[in-house]
Amino acid sequence: MTINAAQLCELLQGELIGDGGTEVYGPSQIDKGIPGTVTFLANPKYEPFAYTTAASILIVSRDFMPKAPVAATMIRVDDVYGAMIRLTEKFSPNGVPAPGISDLAVLDAGFEENSGISIGAYVVAEKGVRIGANSVIYPQVYIGHNAKIGEEVIIYPGVRIYPNTEIGDRCIIHANAVIGSDGFGYRMDVSGQYSKISHVGRVILEEDVEVGANTVIDRGTLQSTVIGRGTKIDNLVQIAHNVQIGQHTVIAAQAGVAGSSAVGNHVRVGGQVGIAGHLKIADNVEIQAQSGVHSGKFPAGSRLFGYPAIGYQEYLRSYAAFRQFPAYIRRIEELEKRLAELTNGKA
Amino acid sequence: MTINAAQLCELLQGELIGDGGTEVYGPSQIDKGIPGTVTFLANPKYEPFAYTTAASILIVSRDFMPKAPVAATMIRVDDVYGAMIRLTEKFSPNGVPAPGISDLAVLDAGFEENSGISIGAYVVAEKGVRIGANSVIYPQVYIGHNAKIGEEVIIYPGVRIYPNTEIGDRCIIHANAVIGSDGFGYRMDVSGQYSKISHVGRVILEEDVEVGANTVIDRGTLQSTVIGRGTKIDNLVQIAHNVQIGQHTVIAAQAGVAGSSAVGNHVRVGGQVGIAGHLKIADNVEIQAQSGVHSGKFPAGSRLFGYPAIGYQEYLRSYAAFRQFPAYIRRIEELEKRLAELTNGKA
Amino acid sequence: MTINAAQLCELLQGELIGDGGTEVYGPSQIDKGIPGTVTFLANPKYEPFAYTTAASILIVSRDFMPKAPVAATMIRVDDVYGAMIRLTEKFSPNGVPAPGISDLAVLDAGFEENSGISIGAYVVAEKGVRIGANSVIYPQVYIGHNAKIGEEVIIYPGVRIYPNTEIGDRCIIHANAVIGSDGFGYRMDVSGQYSKISHVGRVILEEDVEVGANTVIDRGTLQSTVIGRGTKIDNLVQIAHNVQIGQHTVIAAQAGVAGSSAVGNHVRVGGQVGIAGHLKIADNVEIQAQSGVHSGKFPAGSRLFGYPAIGYQEYLRSYAAFRQFPAYIRRIEELEKRLAELTNGKA
Repeated sequence: MTINAAQLCELLQGELIGDGGTEVYGPSQIDKGIPGTVTFLANPKYEPFAYTTAASILIVSRDFMPKAPVAATMIRVDDVYGAMIRLTEKFSPNGVPAPGISDLAVLDAGFEENSGISIGAYVVAEKGVRIGANSVIYPQVYIGHNAKIGEEVIIYPGVRIYPNTEIGDRCIIHANAVIGSDGFGYRMDVSGQYSKISHVGRVILEEDVEVGANTVIDRGTLQSTVIGRGTKIDNLVQIAHNVQIGQHTVIAAQAGVAGSSAVGNHVRVGGQVGIAGHLKIADNVEIQAQSGVHSGKFPAGSRLFGYPAIGYQEYLRSYAAFRQFPAYIRRIEELEKRLAELTNGKA
Repeated sequence: MTINAAQLCELLQGELIGDGGTEVYGPSQIDKGIPGTVTFLANPKYEPFAYTTAASILIVSRDFMPKAPVAATMIRVDDVYGAMIRLTEKFSPNGVPAPGISDLAVLDAGFEENSGISIGAYVVAEKGVRIGANSVIYPQVYIGHNAKIGEEVIIYPGVRIYPNTEIGDRCIIHANAVIGSDGFGYRMDVSGQYSKISHVGRVILEEDVEVGANTVIDRGTLQSTVIGRGTKIDNLVQIAHNVQIGQHTVIAAQAGVAGSSAVGNHVRVGGQVGIAGHLKIADNVEIQAQSGVHSGKFPAGSRLFGYPAIGYQEYLRSYAAFRQFPAYIRRIEELEKRLAELTNGKA
Repeated sequence: MTINAAQLCELLQGELIGDGGTEVYGPSQIDKGIPGTVTFLANPKYEPFAYTTAASILIVSRDFMPKAPVAATMIRVDDVYGAMIRLTEKFSPNGVPAPGISDLAVLDAGFEENSGISIGAYVVAEKGVRIGANSVIYPQVYIGHNAKIGEEVIIYPGVRIYPNTEIGDRCIIHANAVIGSDGFGYRMDVSGQYSKISHVGRVILEEDVEVGANTVIDRGTLQSTVIGRGTKIDNLVQIAHNVQIGQHTVIAAQAGVAGSSAVGNHVRVGGQVGIAGHLKIADNVEIQAQSGVHSGKFPAGSRLFGYPAIGYQEYLRSYAAFRQFPAYIRRIEELEKRLAELTNGKA
């Protein structure tokens, strides 16, 4: 696919400076610009590259005043970052499969060809599964009985969905994620052996949730595990049974939320963070990567760090002191010695 | 499926108080009780909900004395928690597939239809694989050559089993887990490049082991990686080559055990814990979530916390002091100043 | 497969002591030697087992001088460890499938039968995919459009490769790994909702890279995510968008590298390590397991530990002091008390 500067300019409602016929086949970074690509000056500190980039088209802010000649065709726009997002979408490599249902799929329920859905090869969908209009089920996906998939959902290859799971409209689930697996619950009997506690709850993903590759979300014991609308979960994340995640929360890779905890709205959970079980994390909390949250007492908007997590600034101050502590041990011992001398001298 | 109070009462060998004809279709939580469901009063602190729950049947302890009218039909039992486990099993959503071997599977060895085994669509089982009676292999599973699967095993969709692996009776392996992959072993040659060390050991899961979704267990270098009888492993766990895990041990999500370590019986490993290589963890040790265990010197029954892990109480005490340390630094400096003044004043 | 001592001796260019007709079917550990196997005396501390092992053949160093009779047939070699690696390769259980293309695969592009490639059942390879000579694609793999697979590559069952990914010669990718998934990038709009940033970069694995089971490597936003030649990545690792990993680096299980970071050559990253985003890690750095690296200021060859990571020895010293904090707090308070007494006494 190629597009020329005049077409780009129209798409972005910008102002063209230079040759409208300049063609590009994709985007590139301003500091590594490639002929035949379009690039962006979003961050002022990259301005020097505007004068040297090999990219063919350069998108700049309306108020950008060049201090030297710019070789690239320029397009001035109101919102450079927004323009970048629109353009990368245009060049996005995940070309979604065309509607159609593979003959090489085992579908216990029938699906209508004309609802715009796409079901790839080697998919298995068990009895009672429903799939909404315009959803895409990539090859090799498994969907357990009675699961409901909303509209315009994208499920990448190898995803496994356990029975009764509910996936909201416009959710995206990346390759090899597992949704609805058994919670990790056992009861120890008198002989010291574990017997399994069945989980009859479900997993519910509300609308516009994204789930990363190889992430696992367990279903609830009695109630459902719920991921709120607009929440984004990265790769290799663990969401345990009964967890309730609010809306528009982001959870970075390899983080884990233990059983029955509730996480609020607009929370930002860093990579490899652990949240212990049965906690309630308030709205707008930000948890620094690798922290271990053992308490739900932190108010909305807190920024946390440490193991167990405390206030971000408090942790940094204590950690700075931690690094000095071997030196202070010597100073304490010196004080003791001098005080002893002083006392003895007095005695 | 529905069941009525009289039938439930017989199943649980309880005592019925109210209408035996009350029907329920599933369980719910007492504080979120739903008409048409059965709920439980297991924890005394939830007693107020016994008088307000909308659930149709309420299971209580034999010694429960209501302090107010209870609208629900009641069943008194000896062990409320045990009754809950039995009931959730009854309503469990993972309806296991019926016996039968899919025509859409590639099976290098033949399997007898009448042994009660179920093999789903798009399964591949290589040469020499054996599968015991009444085992269920869900769709899209891969089983490498000469692997042996015991009786009454359940293997969920997308599990990958490398050659020669041995899975004991009644094991459960969740979706997309990988069992028997190559250990992470290399030798650096003189030019600074790594060459791969082949792994000829196997993975052996003894009876009644459960392995979570997306967990990985590597096979041994020369000996086998062994998971002991009754041990339960959560999602996204890493078990490296040559590891020996004892019996009835539980390992929570995202924990990792490095190469050649041995973990005892009845050990409880928290989420995101790391156990370094070549250690021996004694029986009944409990390791707090996210801890990093670098030593095998802790006696049986120890409770560990920290990074590197030390005694649980010791870590908490030191961490409390860590939080105060910036203030103590000021106090040390004040002491130094005052002592200097004192000494100077004396001189 | 069996091999006799004379054949082994020739293979290893060793010196035979004993019966050249002694046959073995595999290797074993010296302390758990099994009749019919070959074992190794590589570590001097295992010498006592040389005299008692039940293994049939024992490989020793050329300068080994037995202090007691050795029952096994011996082979003396220059490099015992190297001999072990060659032998375990010979007995390796992952018998690679024979060349041939399964009829039960959906291949949008044609592949030549005579190029030595093997494509298993239930594989899907989309339009434009290229696969080099002698590569092995195990069953149930998904390869997105325009992905390029080099020569002699091995891709284990269930691997998912997103479009446009490039896999170099002799790479090995273990079961259920995901390569080329969408980076975790969103932009928050004024209403507090996240909109997705498309990722048009690719993932490039250079030659001789190995990727562990259930590991995820996201593709870049504009540029590509690159894993350098000879680098080895363990299981359940997260490599985020735009990351650049150098050559001959090793990354242990469950580690994560956040977006846009660059890791040098010959770096050793321990298990469960987290490397924050936008950092540059110098060559030959060694990062202790579970550390959290928040800074790129450490010079080449540094050894790091802690959270946030500092020098290895510095962290150990501070942690030793951390364990003594509570006692020193009491000593500081005692000093204050004594100094107060002294001052008051003087007043």
